[in-house]
Amino acid sequence: MDMSGGNQMDVQRSDFGLRLKTCMDKYGPLCVGIDPHRKILTDWGYNVDAEGAELFSMRMLQAAHGRAAAVKFQTPMFERYGSKGFAALERVLYAARQMGIITIVDCLHGGLSTTISAIADAYFKPGAPLLADAITLLPYYGARSLSGLIDEALDNGRGVFIASLTSNEEGASLQTAIRQSGDYKGRTVAYGIASTAQKHNEGIEGMGSVGLIIGATIGQWISDSGVDPAQFTGPILSPGYGWQGAEAKDLKTVFKGTKGNVLVTVSRFIAAHGPDIAMLSQATESIALDVRQALLEATEEPSDETPSGIVSMPKKATETATPLTFAATGESAAASSGAADAVPDVDDPTESAPQTDESASVPAPAVRSSFDPSKTTGDSAPAAASSKEPRQ
Amino acid sequence: MDMSGGNQMDVQRSDFGLRLKTCMDKYGPLCVGIDPHRKILTDWGYNVDAEGAELFSMRMLQAAHGRAAAVKFQTPMFERYGSKGFAALERVLYAARQMGIITIVDCLHGGLSTTISAIADAYFKPGAPLLADAITLLPYYGARSLSGLIDEALDNGRGVFIASLTSNEEGASLQTAIRQSGDYKGRTVAYGIASTAQKHNEGIEGMGSVGLIIGATIGQWISDSGVDPAQFTGPILSPGYGWQGAEAKDLKTVFKGTKGNVLVTVSRFIAAHGPDIAMLSQATESIALDVRQALLEATEEPSDETPSGIVSMPKKATETATPLTFAATGESAAASSGAADAVPDVDDPTESAPQTDESASVPAPAVRSSFDPSKTTGDSAPAAASSKEPRQ
Repeated sequence: MDMSGGNQMDVQRSDFGLRLKTCMDKYGPLCVGIDPHRKILTDWGYNVDAEGAELFSMRMLQAAHGRAAAVKFQTPMFERYGSKGFAALERVLYAARQMGIITIVDCLHGGLSTTISAIADAYFKPGAPLLADAITLLPYYGARSLSGLIDEALDNGRGVFIASLTSNEEGASLQTAIRQSGDYKGRTVAYGIASTAQKHNEGIEGMGSVGLIIGATIGQWISDSGVDPAQFTGPILSPGYGWQGAEAKDLKTVFKGTKGNVLVTVSRFIAAHGPDIAMLSQATESIALDVRQALLEATEEPSDETPSGIVSMPKKATETATPLTFAATGESAAASSGAADAVPDVDDPTESAPQTDESASVPAPAVRSSFDPSKTTGDSAPAAASSKEPRQ
Repeated sequence: MDMSGGNQMDVQRSDFGLRLKTCMDKYGPLCVGIDPHRKILTDWGYNVDAEGAELFSMRMLQAAHGRAAAVKFQTPMFERYGSKGFAALERVLYAARQMGIITIVDCLHGGLSTTISAIADAYFKPGAPLLADAITLLPYYGARSLSGLIDEALDNGRGVFIASLTSNEEGASLQTAIRQSGDYKGRTVAYGIASTAQKHNEGIEGMGSVGLIIGATIGQWISDSGVDPAQFTGPILSPGYGWQGAEAKDLKTVFKGTKGNVLVTVSRFIAAHGPDIAMLSQATESIALDVRQALLEATEEPSDETPSGIVSMPKKATETATPLTFAATGESAAASSGAADAVPDVDDPTESAPQTDESASVPAPAVRSSFDPSKTTGDSAPAAASSKEPRQ
């Protein structure tokens, strides 16, 4: 059942989760990140402009078709070309809908009440210029401030992914801060967000349509946050696999006990094998297998038993500012070394290297054993982290 | 000195703050919010499409020219029309640059490291399609995660406004949560963000270029946050005046002791007097005077003396999770009644009324004494909150 075409009136509020789950069952948990970084366009021999971004995206889409559950587009990679970039994104989204691939637009909108209907018009309503199956959201105004936009998404059979836990240190300081007021008083910021998201998924048969974004390299922060992904029944979008150092063991650690609802985004690690379509397709298939295997093992791991899981809504806490404590498992302690400070979703380290002091901790891509990079051509092999990004 | 034209190479990192201050000294603290809501386009007799949004924006720009320090555009109001909407915004920004008006694009970007250079290409670099003097940012990944993007802004003589304190209850729960780790351990989320922003402004002669967004209706939350606006030397953008119930006394309470660095955004309250250009201009002038007077009184109020002001960087706190306490003044307690739960920046209550339970607390516009609504024509008078929004 493909509801992404636009004008059907018989949409159910649970449509997105059900459609995504069907695709994940069929193609596995891989979401191909289609992010036309300047460097990759240059590497492919494409122009660094809206047309180059569109050609790149169409080719990545071809590689993802039939090999991945979904595709995700980072909006700023198109926005940098202004209206021309958005016109390119519109055409790419149209092509994806024709192929029946689930589309996620990573626009990270904030969901101010005053802009709810505008964002719904842009992405969710029949005939929307940027019609997508789901978009990403930032909850700085509180998760509940997003409820209007979430309702618009669900009413149109679509979904959202709300940023909750990232792996950079300063993000963790904010996300693990303890609330002093409100429904989740005494709980972390991330806990309140995950719990609010989960409320939208309760009572749904199968996977919900309101998702979370949780970085795969988060390591021990997952315990500090009080959030247990195994208790969440919506989809979980996890960026950071491959290119910036998240590995199979990170997926196993962070997502242990989850039940087939984790969608892993891989972008640069696939794109580095283009523009040859056969190489791109082979890389996509190979990485899809790796990710599927890692998450299969995570599914088989039992989750930590904890009474404060996000499904069982806590009674309003009366204690103030008491950090939630968990017994750290040996595994998560091991996973945290090295990867914990990695920036979120940095699949192009050279893109941000001159500006942030965090990027120094981004490791070079680790090639998975089941994919042989020697089969790639020289100019499409993964670029070394030290390579210089061309400036416009 | 107007550096907004584009190609000058002699930009200083302090340019934006200095240019904005010059304009505020000349025209006062009013920032005209140019937000083409569907309802206002209909009220004006314009088409609800990208062309209507552009015509509306050009007219609002005319009214703001020479009467306000800056103009601000909510991106989703253009994004709803896809690439056509962005093309309209590009032309409006071009017109604003020709007029020499300071432009703020309210895109509320999240500043992921991987998208820094893309956002800089879109808004800051010479020749950027959406070249603006400043943009707005959301700090969910931590204020420090925005530093790369802030550097890009400053390097191009431009600025940013980082969301810090909003007035909705769920936002306050997140923003006043106490950090358990990092440089601002023991401090609130908002405190860490304000302090990080302030670091960029230190050592600047005059007003800095890294601003904060603080809702005017925040009331008593300002004390809970530990943030003292009087200690902040960058610009402060304050939405919510007029239409959704923030009044002169709120400005006086929240911004007491500030020194001419508060920029107050008014949108719907002005637009309701269009499309007649004389009426729009008169409304703009009248509201500019009101806002100027209110902030003048705030400037004369002494700020609370507190050792934890955001200028004096605290030593790394050793205590954990101790809420900062302040002696609440009688004024702020009074201001909090009624307005504290108002949603941020809702200048079109009908826009979100069906979706959120928060909008019920948005009061009808209070007409300021110095402007007489009886002089407006019937069809351009402020719409009643109960009026029905047309659906596309």
